[in-house]
Parts: sequence; structure tokens; C-alpha cells
Amino acid sequence: MSDTPRPDSLDVLTQVLRDFAAERDWDQFHSPKNLVMALSVEVAELMEHFQWLSVEEAAELPLEKQEAVRDELADVLLYLTRLSDKLGVDLVAASYDKIKKNAAKYPADKARGSMRKYTEL
Amino acid sequence: MSDTPRPDSLDVLTQVLRDFAAERDWDQFHSPKNLVMALSVEVAELMEHFQWLSVEEAAELPLEKQEAVRDELADVLLYLTRLSDKLGVDLVAASYDKIKKNAAKYPADKARGSMRKYTEL
Amino acid sequence: MSDTPRPDSLDVLTQVLRDFAAERDWDQFHSPKNLVMALSVEVAELMEHFQWLSVEEAAELPLEKQEAVRDELADVLLYLTRLSDKLGVDLVAASYDKIKKNAAKYPADKARGSMRKYTEL
Amino acid sequence: MSDTPRPDSLDVLTQVLRDFAAERDWDQFHSPKNLVMALSVEVAELMEHFQWLSVEEAAELPLEKQEAVRDELADVLLYLTRLSDKLGVDLVAASYDKIKKNAAKYPADKARGSMRKYTEL
Repeated sequence: MSDTPRPDSLDVLTQVLRDFAAERDWDQFHSPKNLVMALSVEVAELMEHFQWLSVEEAAELPLEKQEAVRDELADVLLYLTRLSDKLGVDLVAASYDKIKKNAAKYPADKARGSMRKYTEL
Repeated sequence: MSDTPRPDSLDVLTQVLRDFAAERDWDQFHSPKNLVMALSVEVAELMEHFQWLSVEEAAELPLEKQEAVRDELADVLLYLTRLSDKLGVDLVAASYDKIKKNAAKYPADKARGSMRKYTEL
Repeated sequence: MSDTPRPDSLDVLTQVLRDFAAERDWDQFHSPKNLVMALSVEVAELMEHFQWLSVEEAAELPLEKQEAVRDELADVLLYLTRLSDKLGVDLVAASYDKIKKNAAKYPADKARGSMRKYTEL
Repeated sequence: MSDTPRPDSLDVLTQVLRDFAAERDWDQFHSPKNLVMALSVEVAELMEHFQWLSVEEAAELPLEKQEAVRDELADVLLYLTRLSDKLGVDLVAASYDKIKKNAAKYPADKARGSMRKYTEL
């Protein structure tokens, strides 16, 4: 038993990706401008699996798509983590701050059952 | 000192987002097909901040853009986490599996200094 | 009655957009790298109108969305035309060439009623 | 010499794509919700060719990328045309209306040499 805190998954991932890029001399390509494009391309590769499916089919992916979709979800997280690192943003802290803003913009009683924009609630 | 393991950030985030949606009765809208569209829209809102900047400007964001960019990075993580949850995918495990695949496709000695596709290395 | 051929819509649009950019000294920003980002952002602005709609609702857009959707479709064409111009591509000729390729990849008898990729037909 | 007006490129393209889909019984898949996803995926396939290039490289595409980029530009126009047809939007008329709006939002003397949003001019 140890009292060393377990490192958080996104912190570890950030460091793993730094090493991965450094070993390949890829930092020269990993500008935020390029990384945001790569992130967008990965999201589209994920979306491609869903584009012709009905809403019901997309909710129960056929077995032969499941591994590919899992890989694409991962790719999105990898580029998102890398981009956040390059921009000096702590992604988890930013997410909790954003959830607070969203909770203020979409109070449960007003937003219930509706996807209208907060400006129209 | 406690021997309770600290919960991981993405596990907590997953649960927080489940509660957030449940309180607003939003599960009816959160089909994977809709969520992947929302994820794509958030990435574009992030990209919008970079589109007219030079590579150098994008690497040193002007102060007045920094909070907005941090918020958009967060939004991407929020939808990615929510979508992975709906698809039953453990995003961190998927990411480590994907990094292993990438390491096999892009061995450091072959990929060094090049962004060619692994099929062209 | 005139025997002057009517200029084609996309040719005229190309020239109008050249003038529009020149009058504003925007060519310095209109690199293909920037324009492809802007094109992607416009598609997302279009997609945003559809993301929470059911397939049926999206096929019969509510009146209050129709003008906004029409504007976003236009924005996509404007950036696509501008990007093609900057890359020296004749978009209409390219489209007819691509339709021929698609017809060869997706022969009507094999592709009927299926959205499988041509590699899986 | 004929006084039959030459049909416009986008009108012809619209009809060709209707026939293409009908011959393959694809209308069942071509809902606006699906088509906007397909459009987004095509833009990302186009963007993928630019993501790791410098601004200078992207402006002078290497020969081996030129045909692929031309094909992707075409695919974007094909899905944009198909989506506009399904939504009953005349894309060329919409584009001219949008240019007028843009001209009002970005008067040449105020917008010259700047990519600031019209709300910040």
C-alpha cells in the first residue's frame, strides 16, 4: 500500500504523447494550427462510421464497426490532449470550469427536455 | 492518509455528464449519431479561432482569445466523453491501445522527421 | 437575341469573389491552408442546425431555420469556389470527372440499395 | 447558332446527381441529416491533404497530391449540390444573396486588410 497518489490518466497521456512525438522528431509539425486540423480530420473519420446509419443502427453499432469506432474515439482524444498540451491548457480543469458555465446557461428547470440555445430559453 | 484510490478524471467527468443530462432530460437527444455531429461542431468552433492566424500567431494566441479557446477545448472533451459513454467505450483504455498500434505503424527510426502515412514509409 | 454564350454561374461567382477579396485586401489571408479551415467551419455552422433534429425534422426544416440554412449552404459554396480558384481547379470539370469515377466504383446493379464502400461491394 | 440558353452547370449537376441516386436506389439514405454528415466528411478528406503542410507548401501542392485534391473538391461540390437539392435551395441564388449580406457586413473601407468579425469592425 502506498500513499503516492495515482497519476491521473490525462496527465500520463500528455507525457506519453510528448515522448512519442520527441522520439519521432514530430514537434516541428505539431503547431496548434496543424493539430486543430488533424483533430478535425479524426472527428470526421469517426463520423464516417455513422453517416449512413439510422439513429437506431448508430446506437447499436454492428460488431464489425466497433473496433474501428473505438480507435477513432481514441485518435480524437490523442490529438485533443496533444493540442491542449501545446496550448498550455489543463483539459480537466477547463472542463470543470466549462460545466459550471453550462450549468448557469442551462438551469435544469428551464432547459428540461429542450435543446434550444440558452439565448432562446 | 487514505487508501481509497483517487477516482480518475475521465471517470468522474463521465458521471458528472450523465447527471447533467439526466437532470435536464437530455438523454432523448444524446444518440451517438447526434453526439458525433455535436462533437464535430465543437471542433469547428475551436478551429474558427485559428483559421486566419499565421502558424506563428496560432502558437502564441492573443490574450483575448485564450479563454474562448480553453472553453472550446473543454467542449470537445465533454462531447467526446459523453459519446464514448453512450457507446460503452473506455476512452483511456482505447487510447493506450491506439498508441500501441501507432507505435507499430510508425517505428521511431522510420518515421523520424516525416509525416508521411505509414503506408508510405 | 444574342449569340454571346451566357457565362456559367460558377465562373461568374469565381470572378465576383476575386473582386470581393481584392477590394478588401484579403488575398493575404486566403491561402489554401486557411481557406480549407474556413470551409470546414462553414460546414459545421450548417451542421449545427441539424444536430439535434430527428431525421424527419431535418427533412422538413422549421420555417425559422430555413433562411439561416440557406445562408450557410451559400457560405460553403463561396469558400469552396474561392479555394478551387486559388488551387487552379475548374470545379465543374472536376465534378464531372469525379462522377465518372464514382459510376465505375459503384455500378448501379451492384450498389443498388446499399451504402457499403465500393471496396466491399 | 442556337438561341436555346445553355443550361447552367449547377442545374445540370443537380439533375445528374438525382439520376445517379435514383439508379442506385439511394434516396432512402439521402436525408439532409445524413447528407450534411457526408459533406463534412468530404471536407475533412480534403483537409487531410493540407494538415501537415506549411502555408507555402499548401499553396504549391506537390504534383502527386493534385489529382486527389481535385477529386476531393469535386466530392464537396457533389454533396453540397445534392443537399441543396433535397432542401429545395437554389444554391446560386442563395450565394448571390449571401454576397450582398457579406458586402453590407464588411464594407471595403472598414474591412480592408483585416479578418476581424464584422461585429468587431
